[in-house]
Amino acid sequence: MSENLAQVLSMGAQARIASRLVRVAPAQQRTRALAAMARRVQAAGADILAANAADVQQARAAGQSESYLDRLQLDPPRLAAMVEALGTIAAAPDPVGVTLSRWRRPNGLDFARVTTPIGVIGVIFESRPNVATDAAALCLRAGNCVILRAGSDSLASVQALTTALREGLADAGLPRDCVQSIATPDRAAVGLMLEGLGGALDVLIPRGGKSLVTRVQSEARVPIFAHLEGLCHTYIHADADADKALAITLNAKLRRVSVCGATETLLCDAAIAPQMLPRIAQALHASGCQLRGDAAAQALHPMQAAQEEDWRTEYLAPILAIKVVGDLDAAMAHIAQYGSGHTDAIVTENALAAQRFCAEVDSAIVLVNASTQFADGGEFGFGAEIGIATGKLHARGPVGADQLVTFKYVIHGTGQTRA
Amino acid sequence: MSENLAQVLSMGAQARIASRLVRVAPAQQRTRALAAMARRVQAAGADILAANAADVQQARAAGQSESYLDRLQLDPPRLAAMVEALGTIAAAPDPVGVTLSRWRRPNGLDFARVTTPIGVIGVIFESRPNVATDAAALCLRAGNCVILRAGSDSLASVQALTTALREGLADAGLPRDCVQSIATPDRAAVGLMLEGLGGALDVLIPRGGKSLVTRVQSEARVPIFAHLEGLCHTYIHADADADKALAITLNAKLRRVSVCGATETLLCDAAIAPQMLPRIAQALHASGCQLRGDAAAQALHPMQAAQEEDWRTEYLAPILAIKVVGDLDAAMAHIAQYGSGHTDAIVTENALAAQRFCAEVDSAIVLVNASTQFADGGEFGFGAEIGIATGKLHARGPVGADQLVTFKYVIHGTGQTRA
Repeated sequence: MSENLAQVLSMGAQARIASRLVRVAPAQQRTRALAAMARRVQAAGADILAANAADVQQARAAGQSESYLDRLQLDPPRLAAMVEALGTIAAAPDPVGVTLSRWRRPNGLDFARVTTPIGVIGVIFESRPNVATDAAALCLRAGNCVILRAGSDSLASVQALTTALREGLADAGLPRDCVQSIATPDRAAVGLMLEGLGGALDVLIPRGGKSLVTRVQSEARVPIFAHLEGLCHTYIHADADADKALAITLNAKLRRVSVCGATETLLCDAAIAPQMLPRIAQALHASGCQLRGDAAAQALHPMQAAQEEDWRTEYLAPILAIKVVGDLDAAMAHIAQYGSGHTDAIVTENALAAQRFCAEVDSAIVLVNASTQFADGGEFGFGAEIGIATGKLHARGPVGADQLVTFKYVIHGTGQTRA
Repeated sequence: MSENLAQVLSMGAQARIASRLVRVAPAQQRTRALAAMARRVQAAGADILAANAADVQQARAAGQSESYLDRLQLDPPRLAAMVEALGTIAAAPDPVGVTLSRWRRPNGLDFARVTTPIGVIGVIFESRPNVATDAAALCLRAGNCVILRAGSDSLASVQALTTALREGLADAGLPRDCVQSIATPDRAAVGLMLEGLGGALDVLIPRGGKSLVTRVQSEARVPIFAHLEGLCHTYIHADADADKALAITLNAKLRRVSVCGATETLLCDAAIAPQMLPRIAQALHASGCQLRGDAAAQALHPMQAAQEEDWRTEYLAPILAIKVVGDLDAAMAHIAQYGSGHTDAIVTENALAAQRFCAEVDSAIVLVNASTQFADGGEFGFGAEIGIATGKLHARGPVGADQLVTFKYVIHGTGQTRA
């Protein structure tokens, strides 16, 4: 093993040591550290922007696309937003040490279920450097240590950010190793993280495109919080309000087409399609959205024919697949077959239909009469999120500080022995 | 792939279909099914005992030990206890559809975090046939489907039990495939389960000895709820009450030596060891417990010398490792180094010491002034448990029906779109 890789492995051991300290640090100390991290990032602004400029120059030379360079690039407003996010997380309620439930048994034993930090969290991400500050802050808010692995194009930016974050930790008397980032571009370092850094990682969070998430999902030996894709549906029920249906569909598809909460397939109830679909299709078309419909949709408005593949495609682009469905059950069957368990919405004035949709659609987020683009930790009131999870265990939906804790049972007795 | 293995894979698909139905079945229907399962197991008693007798005969011929045969064997009282457990789970509160939290955002969106079933749960277990009824009932209580894989020695018993359980499901109008068990002794079936049965399994629960759990932990491609071992500690603090310390230590070690909550290492504070350790050691010795101590413990009572290996050994036998530690920090450092994150106890009258121990010992269960043998779902008031988990995500400690659910976000709006 190269020296670089040995160093990566040693980060796992360092994190476990730091974890024992930060796990029991008072909430106020972690709050002070978060505030200090914000100050240190702000103070190191020039260094961070210089490192980022070098990253951007190198990525441009390597022929990365403009949209890629845009995600990578930092500027003073973006840096200020990162500092502000650190402040927001510093001000957020502390999720550690919360008593979730408490009960007493007939033998007098007092049981409490209390939140505690998870331990050490690995975050593998791609170009956006702000993931470094968001992830570090959310992990610390929940009493965890984090090991960051940035994409090779943003290594210098993330190293500069990490240096500042670690100074902030030291300012508050916490171990610098609560936040570490892997500096080597050696791709074998990702393999070490997928193996769990010698048992050090409790959970791994991949943030990035499908190829990254697919690799992590198929190779990781530790639990993952992630989503591979957001194949979100909006279903216009027979009892939908026409104006809501129009506004929600336009927003759900087009507000931002590149986010995971964007609607990719519109399901329209056959009972209402003749009245509604032409108007909605026209508005989408006028907004530059390409439409791909089944035969029934095509009969109501001129559009391309949808292929089987369209029901399975997360376009992340101004393209919408449209299907006319017979009823609520047909809509839910389509979602069960093609959905990704991320976010799905129904538009209806019928409370019973809404109730069935919410109970029966097995997705992390289900909405009634609202846009799927609300699938975002900020919109949930979580302050910030480290990602959105579509797995079923532990964390589901937007992952904020509240979901970066686990719990333990604390039992108080007076000398009880078991019969 | 053999016909048998193709059939095992098809069980995954069947379970997913059944899951869509049982997931939304009303609580009362699942309660009726659990009651019917109890009746059907009772009614099929003769068939079940006959199948079990054949299993026992075969296992005896294969040279299995008496203790193994004892775990495998059913008799009318054991069968009655299994039926009673089904009734208890039928009567337990339903964990599905519970609103965990609810809040409203400034834009009027109403958010609820609501429990929902996980989906399909795989259970791999060894000789005890009662795991089949307990696991099936807990999974159903939480709206899940279960696929059971019994040890090759108990296949006939578990098939007979499964037949009865499936009849009970049908009696209540639920799909029989909510409970399936793998009938083939082909060990490749276990490999298929570890791979997740073609994406069908949401979580895997191994119940059995270390070789089983180790294999599942190292090879499974799906999340696991399990514990490898219970290397539990009892720490007698300097401010311990002598009588409590004696009673708790004897119970924690000797009540049953073969359970995962049995104490394996006694840590005794140096400040109190001269007064306490001789009395405790004598009582343990008189009860037939072999003692292995460090030099300081040996100086206080005649006992074998403990080796490094003793601190790492889950004896599951009347053997106790004893170490004299300098203070609370030394005790916690020992537990951090050698513990398995299962269950650890402190005996003390000092509230501050108790508080630090509970906060800083990173185990699923921490106790103050009580025996580690309380590490059991029944003693927690959970009614029954499907096992104890030492992982940190989702389920930790005894896993009852309450931990076999996940949650989703249900959001109600009035036409909101995102800015």
